[in-house]
Amino acid sequence: MIPKPYLMFMGRESVLRSAKTALGIRDWAPQDCVAQWRLGAEAIDLGLAEMRPRAAREAGARAMVLGIAPVGGALPEEWIAPILEAMEAGLDIVSGLHARLTDVPAIAEAAQRLGRTLHEVRHPRRPFPIATGHRRPGKRLLTVGTDCALGKKYTSLAIAREMRSRGIDADFRATGQTGIMIAGDGIAMDAVVSDFIAGAAETLSPAAHPDHWDVIEGQGAILHPSFAGVTLGLLHGSQPDVLILCHDPSRSAIASTPGFPFRSLGETRDLYLSLARLTNPQVRFAGIALNTSSLGEADARALAAALEASEGLPVFDPLRFGIAAAVDAVLA
Amino acid sequence: MIPKPYLMFMGRESVLRSAKTALGIRDWAPQDCVAQWRLGAEAIDLGLAEMRPRAAREAGARAMVLGIAPVGGALPEEWIAPILEAMEAGLDIVSGLHARLTDVPAIAEAAQRLGRTLHEVRHPRRPFPIATGHRRPGKRLLTVGTDCALGKKYTSLAIAREMRSRGIDADFRATGQTGIMIAGDGIAMDAVVSDFIAGAAETLSPAAHPDHWDVIEGQGAILHPSFAGVTLGLLHGSQPDVLILCHDPSRSAIASTPGFPFRSLGETRDLYLSLARLTNPQVRFAGIALNTSSLGEADARALAAALEASEGLPVFDPLRFGIAAAVDAVLA
Repeated sequence: MIPKPYLMFMGRESVLRSAKTALGIRDWAPQDCVAQWRLGAEAIDLGLAEMRPRAAREAGARAMVLGIAPVGGALPEEWIAPILEAMEAGLDIVSGLHARLTDVPAIAEAAQRLGRTLHEVRHPRRPFPIATGHRRPGKRLLTVGTDCALGKKYTSLAIAREMRSRGIDADFRATGQTGIMIAGDGIAMDAVVSDFIAGAAETLSPAAHPDHWDVIEGQGAILHPSFAGVTLGLLHGSQPDVLILCHDPSRSAIASTPGFPFRSLGETRDLYLSLARLTNPQVRFAGIALNTSSLGEADARALAAALEASEGLPVFDPLRFGIAAAVDAVLA
Repeated sequence: MIPKPYLMFMGRESVLRSAKTALGIRDWAPQDCVAQWRLGAEAIDLGLAEMRPRAAREAGARAMVLGIAPVGGALPEEWIAPILEAMEAGLDIVSGLHARLTDVPAIAEAAQRLGRTLHEVRHPRRPFPIATGHRRPGKRLLTVGTDCALGKKYTSLAIAREMRSRGIDADFRATGQTGIMIAGDGIAMDAVVSDFIAGAAETLSPAAHPDHWDVIEGQGAILHPSFAGVTLGLLHGSQPDVLILCHDPSRSAIASTPGFPFRSLGETRDLYLSLARLTNPQVRFAGIALNTSSLGEADARALAAALEASEGLPVFDPLRFGIAAAVDAVLA
């Protein structure tokens, strides 16, 4: 578990897309964000109090999050002194970088000397088992998609929140770096050695009370030429009872890679179901989550209504309009 | 590339199944096996000359292969001195162990001091790209299966050998430890970080002459609850023109994991084709490779004939009877 709450380190990052992790944590775990630390006035303002590590520690912070993705993925030289200052002030460090903090001798030495933990969420340290495929008690929902980066994490978080607001015992299970920092726990599926993908997914949502729901953040897409292996391992290990299909109606093809047009939503759902039945023959779809950020309000509602009619499932935008019907369908 | 030929280190291993790697190399690359080194009379005899490292080096050996899987996967203490002796004699070390040789200080230090390379095939050192999904020239065959460990490697090796014997420009592409030691090169797919499975597969069979064939060793099975993610990433990255389905008729369910009965061969083929079409819409099956080791000769031939009629594809046992018809179908 990552200790909370956080001091959010923003460096000099001014590009919103590079600060997705920080913005996601602010949106979904505002109670875990004590303060922000910006190295320059150009850096994105999360709307939090400005503090240096010592003040943040006194205000309750337990860890400093590197909430931004540096260009090229390497650790900027300029971040080393702030990381050391945070550890000196008593904070752990939380990083989603591909670069390893432990490869920087000054950081590794200080963590060792001060007894701080470097939570490198893209570099899982625990070993994972080979998946057994055995069914385990508890209920599981997995978000799946027509592509990457179209709302699987937000949809999962929104469903888990709605379930909890109804008094249902539910946990959000994070599979990517931002989700892990929001939840304080999870497994970065894309960083797991491939023999252990499904085993890591089994570990992520362990046996639970039969009425308990794990709402699992999906990864990739089954028709994505780069990442379908991760998607399938996560699908098999999660053994979902319920799937939610996440889709962005402004896309008709895989965004990152030219030449891969989507199949129809019906064909895509059939493919997911056919594969998911291997480890849970009762699996079903309970809804379609639309990312309607490209549409005006009226168009978004009209599209949702049309898709509800054609697909025969509740259709919702978790950031825009009601997920109650979808959660009703999940629980049905 | 791993330097050849090899001195085969057999330790005290007396269990055939634990010596699969050594036996596979002896069967498929006998010209690369200079000698064997057994620590006791109980060890399996590969039928090679017995030599210590210095004599093997003088006889031409360039590397010593740890051809056996120790119980528990850890490096036996008793192997350290022989490994050091081999490096002192001028040999690189080839290991398929999960344990890292570089974690043994005496071995790491000696390799550094002597300038020897530790070829740890389960621990790929090169970084892999994210898959692009772009088609590349050259022809590709991939073996796929109803389960693990039923002949995908042997089938691939036999097809590549048959192609070369016909004067076709063909390469066997290894994806597991034994295959890599036979070929002297390859990528252990199960050791690749999951984000890069398909990208590693693209790297493994790079752009080639349009008439060149890569015959790619398959991994796992698409209906295996533990390993389907590896299978799918390899399938997408390989972009196969031709698939060969490998099957053991004595099995009706996944061997390693109870509760996963096979689907019919036809359903299994349809699933592979549906998924493979994402990166190569022209993909087709050219044959079924049967592992008939559980059957007598007459039963094996009768089963192959019956399946040829029902499945409409050449059916062969690469270790037992002719693969010519299957290779004809591949080339058709």
